[in-house]
Amino acid sequence: MEETKERKIVVAVDESEESMEALSWSLDNLFPYGSNNTLILLYVKPSLSVYSSLDAAGFIVTGDPVAALKKYEHELAESVLARSHTLYHNFESDINIERRVGRGDAKEVICNAVEKLRADMLVIGTHDYGFFKRALLGSVSDYCAKRVKCPVIIVKKQPQNN
Amino acid sequence: MEETKERKIVVAVDESEESMEALSWSLDNLFPYGSNNTLILLYVKPSLSVYSSLDAAGFIVTGDPVAALKKYEHELAESVLARSHTLYHNFESDINIERRVGRGDAKEVICNAVEKLRADMLVIGTHDYGFFKRALLGSVSDYCAKRVKCPVIIVKKQPQNN
Repeated sequence: MEETKERKIVVAVDESEESMEALSWSLDNLFPYGSNNTLILLYVKPSLSVYSSLDAAGFIVTGDPVAALKKYEHELAESVLARSHTLYHNFESDINIERRVGRGDAKEVICNAVEKLRADMLVIGTHDYGFFKRALLGSVSDYCAKRVKCPVIIVKKQPQNN
Repeated sequence: MEETKERKIVVAVDESEESMEALSWSLDNLFPYGSNNTLILLYVKPSLSVYSSLDAAGFIVTGDPVAALKKYEHELAESVLARSHTLYHNFESDINIERRVGRGDAKEVICNAVEKLRADMLVIGTHDYGFFKRALLGSVSDYCAKRVKCPVIIVKKQPQNN
C-alpha cells in the first residue's frame, strides 16, 4: 500500500452549526485511516476596532466594556474550540491537529492564513441564506472560494433525516 | 477497521484543463484505499437550441451543418471521457465509475443531476478569471455552490512546481 501524501487541511470554525458540520464532514471524508493529513482549526476573532467603535458611540456602562467584551470573546473562542475538540476527540483515528486563532475580518484572515500555511485545502461551512440576506451579509465562503488558490470545500448544513 | 460509508461523488468534466485537474484531485483525495465511493463523471453537451440558432442566422454551408456539429460534439464528448479514463485508469486502486452525459445549460444540468443522483458531493473545476471575464461568462462553479445542497468542492488549476 502506498503511503498517502501529507496534506494540510484548514477548517474555518466559528460559533455556527454550519462550521461544526464542515468540521464533521472533513473528519469523515478527508482523514482516511493511515493518512498523515494535518487538520488546522482556524478561529477568527473580530477586529479590535469593533470594540473601539463601541466606545466611540458613547455607551455608558459601568466597569470596563472593552475588558468585558474581550473576556466574552475569549470564552467564545474557547467554547468553539472545545466543541471542535469534542468532534475530533470522538473520531476513531488519530489525527494531527493544530489550533490557530486569528483576528480581523474573517474572510481576509482565512484567505491569508491559507496562503501563509500553504494549505492544501480549505473547508468552510456556509449558511443557506436567501438572496437578500446574502446580499446584505456577503458570504465568507464566496469570497474565499474566489480568492484562495487551493481547492475550497463548501459545506452546507444538511437537513436531518436526509 | 471500520468499513467506510459509500459515497456518490459527481465530478463535472468538460474539455478544460481545470476539469481534468478537478478529476485528478478527486482521485487523489476522495478515493482512499478500500473505500466504496462511486465516481460519477458528468459531461454536459450544449443545448440543441445552439444549433437551431446557427441555422436561423442563415449560415450558408454545404452539407448538413447540424449533423456535422453533432458529430463534432459527439467526438468532443468521447475525447473528454477518454482523457478522464486515462486519469482514473492510471489510479492504483479499483473504483466504481459511472459515466453520464447530459444536455443543456451546464450549470442547470449539473445541479439537477446532483439532486437526482442524490450525490454526496460535487467536484467542479473553475477558471481563475478576472472580474470582467467572470462577469461576462458567469461562473458554473459559483452557481452550483449556491444551488446544490451537498458539499461542493471547487478546484482551481494549480500552478506547476507549486
